[in-house]
Amino acid sequence: MSFPTRDDAAKPPEGLPASGTPATLAGRFHGVRRASEALCKPLATEDYVVQSMHDASPIKWHLAHTTWYFETFVLSEVPGYQPYDARYAYLFNSYYNSVGEQYPRPERGMLTRPTVAEVYAYRRHVNEAIGDLLEGDAERWGRWSDVIELGLHHEQQHQELMLTDLKHALSLNPLRPAYTRAERSSRGEAPLFRWVDFEEGVRWLGHSGKGFSFDNERPLHRHLVPAFELASRPVTSGEYLAFIEAEGYSRPDLWLSDGWAAVQQRGWKAPLYWERRDGTWWHFTLTGMRPVDPEEPVCHLSYYEADAYARFVDYRLPTEQEWEVAAQPASTDGNFVESRLWHPAVPEDGGRTDLDQLFGDVWEWTRSPYGPYPRYEPPAGAIGEYNGKFMCNQFVLRGGACSTPASHIRSTYRNFFYPDARWQWSGIRLARYS
Amino acid sequence: MSFPTRDDAAKPPEGLPASGTPATLAGRFHGVRRASEALCKPLATEDYVVQSMHDASPIKWHLAHTTWYFETFVLSEVPGYQPYDARYAYLFNSYYNSVGEQYPRPERGMLTRPTVAEVYAYRRHVNEAIGDLLEGDAERWGRWSDVIELGLHHEQQHQELMLTDLKHALSLNPLRPAYTRAERSSRGEAPLFRWVDFEEGVRWLGHSGKGFSFDNERPLHRHLVPAFELASRPVTSGEYLAFIEAEGYSRPDLWLSDGWAAVQQRGWKAPLYWERRDGTWWHFTLTGMRPVDPEEPVCHLSYYEADAYARFVDYRLPTEQEWEVAAQPASTDGNFVESRLWHPAVPEDGGRTDLDQLFGDVWEWTRSPYGPYPRYEPPAGAIGEYNGKFMCNQFVLRGGACSTPASHIRSTYRNFFYPDARWQWSGIRLARYS
Amino acid sequence: MSFPTRDDAAKPPEGLPASGTPATLAGRFHGVRRASEALCKPLATEDYVVQSMHDASPIKWHLAHTTWYFETFVLSEVPGYQPYDARYAYLFNSYYNSVGEQYPRPERGMLTRPTVAEVYAYRRHVNEAIGDLLEGDAERWGRWSDVIELGLHHEQQHQELMLTDLKHALSLNPLRPAYTRAERSSRGEAPLFRWVDFEEGVRWLGHSGKGFSFDNERPLHRHLVPAFELASRPVTSGEYLAFIEAEGYSRPDLWLSDGWAAVQQRGWKAPLYWERRDGTWWHFTLTGMRPVDPEEPVCHLSYYEADAYARFVDYRLPTEQEWEVAAQPASTDGNFVESRLWHPAVPEDGGRTDLDQLFGDVWEWTRSPYGPYPRYEPPAGAIGEYNGKFMCNQFVLRGGACSTPASHIRSTYRNFFYPDARWQWSGIRLARYS
Amino acid sequence: MSFPTRDDAAKPPEGLPASGTPATLAGRFHGVRRASEALCKPLATEDYVVQSMHDASPIKWHLAHTTWYFETFVLSEVPGYQPYDARYAYLFNSYYNSVGEQYPRPERGMLTRPTVAEVYAYRRHVNEAIGDLLEGDAERWGRWSDVIELGLHHEQQHQELMLTDLKHALSLNPLRPAYTRAERSSRGEAPLFRWVDFEEGVRWLGHSGKGFSFDNERPLHRHLVPAFELASRPVTSGEYLAFIEAEGYSRPDLWLSDGWAAVQQRGWKAPLYWERRDGTWWHFTLTGMRPVDPEEPVCHLSYYEADAYARFVDYRLPTEQEWEVAAQPASTDGNFVESRLWHPAVPEDGGRTDLDQLFGDVWEWTRSPYGPYPRYEPPAGAIGEYNGKFMCNQFVLRGGACSTPASHIRSTYRNFFYPDARWQWSGIRLARYS
Repeated sequence: MSFPTRDDAAKPPEGLPASGTPATLAGRFHGVRRASEALCKPLATEDYVVQSMHDASPIKWHLAHTTWYFETFVLSEVPGYQPYDARYAYLFNSYYNSVGEQYPRPERGMLTRPTVAEVYAYRRHVNEAIGDLLEGDAERWGRWSDVIELGLHHEQQHQELMLTDLKHALSLNPLRPAYTRAERSSRGEAPLFRWVDFEEGVRWLGHSGKGFSFDNERPLHRHLVPAFELASRPVTSGEYLAFIEAEGYSRPDLWLSDGWAAVQQRGWKAPLYWERRDGTWWHFTLTGMRPVDPEEPVCHLSYYEADAYARFVDYRLPTEQEWEVAAQPASTDGNFVESRLWHPAVPEDGGRTDLDQLFGDVWEWTRSPYGPYPRYEPPAGAIGEYNGKFMCNQFVLRGGACSTPASHIRSTYRNFFYPDARWQWSGIRLARYS
Repeated sequence: MSFPTRDDAAKPPEGLPASGTPATLAGRFHGVRRASEALCKPLATEDYVVQSMHDASPIKWHLAHTTWYFETFVLSEVPGYQPYDARYAYLFNSYYNSVGEQYPRPERGMLTRPTVAEVYAYRRHVNEAIGDLLEGDAERWGRWSDVIELGLHHEQQHQELMLTDLKHALSLNPLRPAYTRAERSSRGEAPLFRWVDFEEGVRWLGHSGKGFSFDNERPLHRHLVPAFELASRPVTSGEYLAFIEAEGYSRPDLWLSDGWAAVQQRGWKAPLYWERRDGTWWHFTLTGMRPVDPEEPVCHLSYYEADAYARFVDYRLPTEQEWEVAAQPASTDGNFVESRLWHPAVPEDGGRTDLDQLFGDVWEWTRSPYGPYPRYEPPAGAIGEYNGKFMCNQFVLRGGACSTPASHIRSTYRNFFYPDARWQWSGIRLARYS
Repeated sequence: MSFPTRDDAAKPPEGLPASGTPATLAGRFHGVRRASEALCKPLATEDYVVQSMHDASPIKWHLAHTTWYFETFVLSEVPGYQPYDARYAYLFNSYYNSVGEQYPRPERGMLTRPTVAEVYAYRRHVNEAIGDLLEGDAERWGRWSDVIELGLHHEQQHQELMLTDLKHALSLNPLRPAYTRAERSSRGEAPLFRWVDFEEGVRWLGHSGKGFSFDNERPLHRHLVPAFELASRPVTSGEYLAFIEAEGYSRPDLWLSDGWAAVQQRGWKAPLYWERRDGTWWHFTLTGMRPVDPEEPVCHLSYYEADAYARFVDYRLPTEQEWEVAAQPASTDGNFVESRLWHPAVPEDGGRTDLDQLFGDVWEWTRSPYGPYPRYEPPAGAIGEYNGKFMCNQFVLRGGACSTPASHIRSTYRNFFYPDARWQWSGIRLARYS
Repeated sequence: MSFPTRDDAAKPPEGLPASGTPATLAGRFHGVRRASEALCKPLATEDYVVQSMHDASPIKWHLAHTTWYFETFVLSEVPGYQPYDARYAYLFNSYYNSVGEQYPRPERGMLTRPTVAEVYAYRRHVNEAIGDLLEGDAERWGRWSDVIELGLHHEQQHQELMLTDLKHALSLNPLRPAYTRAERSSRGEAPLFRWVDFEEGVRWLGHSGKGFSFDNERPLHRHLVPAFELASRPVTSGEYLAFIEAEGYSRPDLWLSDGWAAVQQRGWKAPLYWERRDGTWWHFTLTGMRPVDPEEPVCHLSYYEADAYARFVDYRLPTEQEWEVAAQPASTDGNFVESRLWHPAVPEDGGRTDLDQLFGDVWEWTRSPYGPYPRYEPPAGAIGEYNGKFMCNQFVLRGGACSTPASHIRSTYRNFFYPDARWQWSGIRLARYS
């Protein structure tokens, strides 16, 4: 495989997997691995190197780290396997203390070597080794099937982070270079807004155990959810603009105390990537600078902004339990990464269901701090460092975004970020008590 | 009134209110106001001035700010009242944006004027004005009775902060000066440890509305609480020592990710105020340096340490709902500030109830992030800035400590601090699922 | 001796020494020691405690540190002397590594104990011990006469720092409290400005060895000084105002690169302590807020501002050699601390000499980085840490200011500060090549 | 021209100019421009992108900035010239305020675009335009000959910075990748050490005006230089090792106050790039990790370390005037970048002159703060921002290093860095008074 060159930059990347997922583990493995590389087709070599902030990582690092996962948790246990380069264990471990020291996170952008070509070679090597393993007798690889499955979902998370991190890095460049062109442009009006009712009840929440889930979605448990109403669609950019124009960023009464401190220290005046030019709001997108479309879902908001907006319109954010109750019967169709729109959009069909755009478009902030479900137990060993140790100081987001692989999401899926994070495609769905 | 001089430093402060609370609002007002000043009896003038960290405030500032409360929210609305000094509105507003700008919090220790004597004069002036008001016709002051009542509970919170802030400031001094002497020393063995069972059920939680409560304790609401067991008493210093000796502070697997970062950045190796001298652990207390008593409840722990300890012994911290279920039928007796022990202690009676030391001794960290109860609404106006705007990034603690006024606590009381805070008398009560 | 109380605050402090200096060492010792305390007469106890920035120290610390000097370098070598409090050696050592560890400088404002009264008691104790020593046989104390003499000049430096540090601390208080009242107000017009010529020549510079000098003024040495002209008086506030009004603070071409960075990072727009109120410039002085008098020498300027101003008017700052050549024949009369004006002023006599106000009023920035004279050697032992180790990154100032004791200054005296320092009474005298 | 690919990495770069300099301006222009690119032959694309600290810049940026110089100061004044990309004026201006705003220096490593290939295309474009200009009538380009000449010396400075910045970036990589292979290895013993005498005298210093010089070397002026002795060669790594072994990094008495603060804050224990492995000192060089050769000149020292070492051996650093007096009659031969040793070395001939290695090998710290010579005037216009505005807080280094182009150095050349800078090949030559 030759790694992508910049000549392809003008065309949208190809090779993203169709939303269907292959039946076999080997099929899924190669599909997900290819999808990561397909996302890189439009990149110049230089674009792989930069770390634009501590929260982000270079693209090169994402490609190597997801490979390190399979080498560390699978291949290193296969008798006779020799590490591709013993020093990579240190360079590409993210935060798994159980398997050794880590190269300091804020320094990831200092690594010019291994080069991009060398990282692709590392991927090929590990892909072949895992491929060989999976072609063999299932008795041989069965003991790793769960950890491989987990690795694929882990890699899908990194696919999304590659897009968020790349967008952030490109946005810092005064040239505002586009990642790619859009497949089609979003057009039309946002779906009608209305409230959808839900009755009080003790609900079963969390993952039932059928199909893949992360540990943090388990165990299935009951929760008393009071009666509530949920907005039929996300808040649009036009609606959010009313908040900006009403001086929402200058009114401390609308903000949580920590949020107000963030507004002042960082000089927030609009969502991330918004710029005012000659009286019009533009924003940087993966397809370049564009005027803000008031009908699109608003995105790149912190929790603080989502919460302040909700207070401004006299509603609130939903709890994650409320969100999940509403999502349980819903279809998971939506604007995902496979749409190649690279941005939240007006739904093509205009919105036809009770609850539009629950899945895809924007991650929806909930008011629920990220914590353990009752009787939650992290798995034993290094894999146990995956989710549990982050159950502090973050908030849950639900539903996936335009950057999420379609096969990655489900109604029980819990994403989580610190409340000041804005570089994800994060937005707002309102709620209120009945 | 002459303000306290340093000659009294050798004797424990007098004049702390008995735990009974006066029946009339005027009686309560004068009692609480006197109690704040009684806490200052052992201080030198210099002790009032220092701000030892951003989280803390000078004693002088506490005395003035609690006075500003009554002047701003009551007297300024009384026809004809002239502000004592118009500039104090800026200097002594803590965080109430609705009533104006605030002098920057981290600079509070820069203010040498008004002097301590001038702050006491300000207190006398406001005390007299409120006193005159309350002696008058209740028709006249009735409209402010709630805000005055709130002001007294607010002042009691600051009484506790005066002790925590003072302890922190004195601890930085290599001379390790004692605040006062202990009334008696803690002696004897910790109560026997056992687990107390609670069955699953949908419980009524929060404040019923009878008697005073803060807005964050309301409204009364139902919550499904799974079956659980609660430890019969707090974790002792001796038990915590086993965690230290087992290298608990060097094992990342025991810590939340943010906690582990805190351990490393700040070099935590033991609870705040602990010092190892010649192989023995000592700690700084309000009564000076003392050897750590292994039978006392351990205190001055962050949430991160409490959580790591619980993981170390394979249990967990309780949720605030579990804690409240357990505390609803319990007596609120305990080691409060009126005991003049100035530190958690072995109970005098050795512990006789199912659940010992639920109230007093140490604030008990729960695993519940501080957030709004269902249908919570902050009050309108400036008073609404009291609790709601802090519902983010903090954890709930329950039960009061040796620094809490006895009349200030109740089973529904929710205290809250950031998970890295250690300067409160905060400790651990363990829980587990049945 | 009772230490000063606040009742005296309204009156200017008394007891400052007349500018004559006593003939005997004992006389000088007691005179200088009294002068330090006389400066504190207007202070409230609270004013002694605060450290308003890292560069400054609490007044209490100055009083104790100057006492520690005599105890450490004299008394501790007197057979049989017992330290007053062994722990003070750590608390009050400023930077003498040779005599032990130091309490961290930025934490000096955290020390509420020893109290002000205890520090005065410490002073009394050491004063008596030194007094007893000096009343004895000169054979006994002769070996310490130099170190005592040095200690007195050291204490005079701290007297000046007490005023600069106090002014800074009071300036942070929104109440802008005055230190004292002015003895008289400055009035009249600045002396006429003219250039004074000096021919080229190889000059003898530095201290000849007669009378006291610091090591950094020695040895006497020759230097080729090109022909130059020196301004007859310092730049006035009115002249500096023209720089402000010409947008001098917004023109990078006028500034050194590091200076421009300082202007931008700290938002400098005028000298320290200047505030614009309703279109008029006021400044905070030790006698309170006053309108800026355009005839007074401008002060509280950094080296960067002095240098930028000189470039603005197309001249330059003098070298320290030029300054010294000009000052060698001049009288050292001037507006010193004994004038009790507490600020630079128009000379009472209107200025009558070739070079007015060379001494007193403002420290004059030279363009000379502070470094060693040829063949400079610091003294052996701890006293050697006095001056030499600071010969890096600082600039020389000459001539003393309104805050300097008259007996402390001479034409060879080299003061030095970092180029961004503004809290001294530092100003500008211009020079140019002939 | 194809830009260098990584396949060449194993071989030392070719195409460095011979030390002779072409007679014509066009010849010199193309030679210097080629030399910059020749230095990049061993690089991977990724190596061009990284900014490893604020003081450093990406290689890509150096290549573009030196090109921007010629476009801005020459081509933009040529009638009819169209800027290659108008946005580059902002991206690649370093600090010339007179010609516009600058992209923030610390963010230079965030720019993935223009790509390396695009920067090489920019160079080609400007090279051709300047080449065309210089092939034309000298009457046409004569007015720019000085600014072109200055641009070439400016580019040579950046050639040196490319090596220092690249070394720093590669050193952060745990893989410690080598830039290239060494042409030959240094071998043999350091020249014998002796003192060389110089008599006192009033000396003519600075540049006479014949041939190129920077403004900061001018004007020629007289200075009284006292008698002194200069070491015959630089301090070796072996000699410096004695300082390390004598705990020189732990003895505050040896250090300037600011130096001691740097030692403690940054944990310095040896020169930059030194690492202790199994009891042996290794260091990172452009040719990879190597054991420290005790006979080589020690390098990568801050001024603070150079000064402390001199104090340790009871000598001192020379003034820049002393250095220049000694260098005036000396040959400028030495170990420069054209030697392709990439590191200071034992001289091939073993050292045969009175003063060995005055030029090349290591930049020699002087004790002279960088300031203006008497009657110094910066040139008018943007070019005036070149040197004068840095005359503050830095120290002068003399003589060039193994990274300097041979045609760039002369006895009057003044290099300057902040005293804490260590990433240059900076070393020590001792001096003492006769």
